[in-house]
Amino acid sequence: MNGEKNVSLAVIKRLPKYYRYLGELIDVDVSRISSKELSERLNITASQIRQDLNNFGSFGLQGYGYNVELLYEEISRILGLNKDHNIIIIGAGNIGHALINYSDFTNRGFKFIGIFEKDPNLIGTKINNIDIYDINTLENFIQGKNVDIAVLAIPKNSANYITKILYKNNVRGIWNFSNVDLKAGKNTKVEDVHLMDSLMTLSYKINEKEIIERYTNKKLLITKR
Amino acid sequence: MNGEKNVSLAVIKRLPKYYRYLGELIDVDVSRISSKELSERLNITASQIRQDLNNFGSFGLQGYGYNVELLYEEISRILGLNKDHNIIIIGAGNIGHALINYSDFTNRGFKFIGIFEKDPNLIGTKINNIDIYDINTLENFIQGKNVDIAVLAIPKNSANYITKILYKNNVRGIWNFSNVDLKAGKNTKVEDVHLMDSLMTLSYKINEKEIIERYTNKKLLITKR
Repeated sequence: MNGEKNVSLAVIKRLPKYYRYLGELIDVDVSRISSKELSERLNITASQIRQDLNNFGSFGLQGYGYNVELLYEEISRILGLNKDHNIIIIGAGNIGHALINYSDFTNRGFKFIGIFEKDPNLIGTKINNIDIYDINTLENFIQGKNVDIAVLAIPKNSANYITKILYKNNVRGIWNFSNVDLKAGKNTKVEDVHLMDSLMTLSYKINEKEIIERYTNKKLLITKR
Repeated sequence: MNGEKNVSLAVIKRLPKYYRYLGELIDVDVSRISSKELSERLNITASQIRQDLNNFGSFGLQGYGYNVELLYEEISRILGLNKDHNIIIIGAGNIGHALINYSDFTNRGFKFIGIFEKDPNLIGTKINNIDIYDINTLENFIQGKNVDIAVLAIPKNSANYITKILYKNNVRGIWNFSNVDLKAGKNTKVEDVHLMDSLMTLSYKINEKEIIERYTNKKLLITKR
């Protein structure tokens, strides 16, 4: 094994769930949990949990289970939560507002250091004590500060222009709330949050029975007009 | 095939992406696209796209490709977007605010009909012209109106109590922004949006190289304390 080994995205996406649940156990003073119990509560097979964690080393002891606090700390390190991250927000709209007021992020070491806006009425004001700067000063700001993550909370038609600046200046990660799929840059990772897609998925789920019935009763063919 | 047939969640989760991209093509007046082009733009194999759509019928013609507008309309129907959905929001905090001000939802037929809060200072006021009601009137409200979707935007310690009311009154779907995993109810589907998990996933991605190096150089064993 070497530093180039990659862990699959599916594994990574399960880690926050483990972390969240272990945190809940700590809150109620549970210090030890068997892989069977962990599996039942998370609705993930014990062997899947073992496999996931084995990407990072050996956790748990046969016949004992997991030490909750140690496993929590290890997963925290695996998720990079043992260090602070500087975040900027692009777009002082509703999403930007919601995120900056969400104290859970700050508690995990995600520190907001600036907001960037094009609206002259907002530039120079603050949200939750964080300064709102002119979007035109973005590149200068990034070059002068250590920006780990940029939150993209602007309409999709401005997203391309801004992401070019972020890629060019090697911002390490983009947390993308704009309604567009972004490709990762050479030195920039991307995590998309598509709220509209999520709502559409729910819409499908609640209408599924009717939808499936319609499509199985009706043979559809899209023809050339 | 019958009405009980289920389509896998992975397929459903790709449909909004197809829908979004086809909408972009319509915006720039593209009327026809080959499965090859569609595949390249979406970074999904052509056979995967065909398989996904085949769950709902035959789309596209060999040698012609897809009629963009017709496929867009069909996917819109598959996602249940051909009809309106009534939405209530539980919690008038930052997330509630952000969602209610997000016009894309309204444009797709998702209609906000009420917000529920326990804060007496907010009850009786409005956000974006939608009334904020006392959370204690929630059950009455649901029984009197046709509520399709409830957005859960409250802290996790209140989530259980509220979801019981939603399940009991057969609200069709819960869009869950609370930091807890919800199980679907008998007649209630659930779609989770875990923003903290998403940010942690990004944190992992930007720190991955260092994390993998640390864990491959160091054999870890959690021992009994």
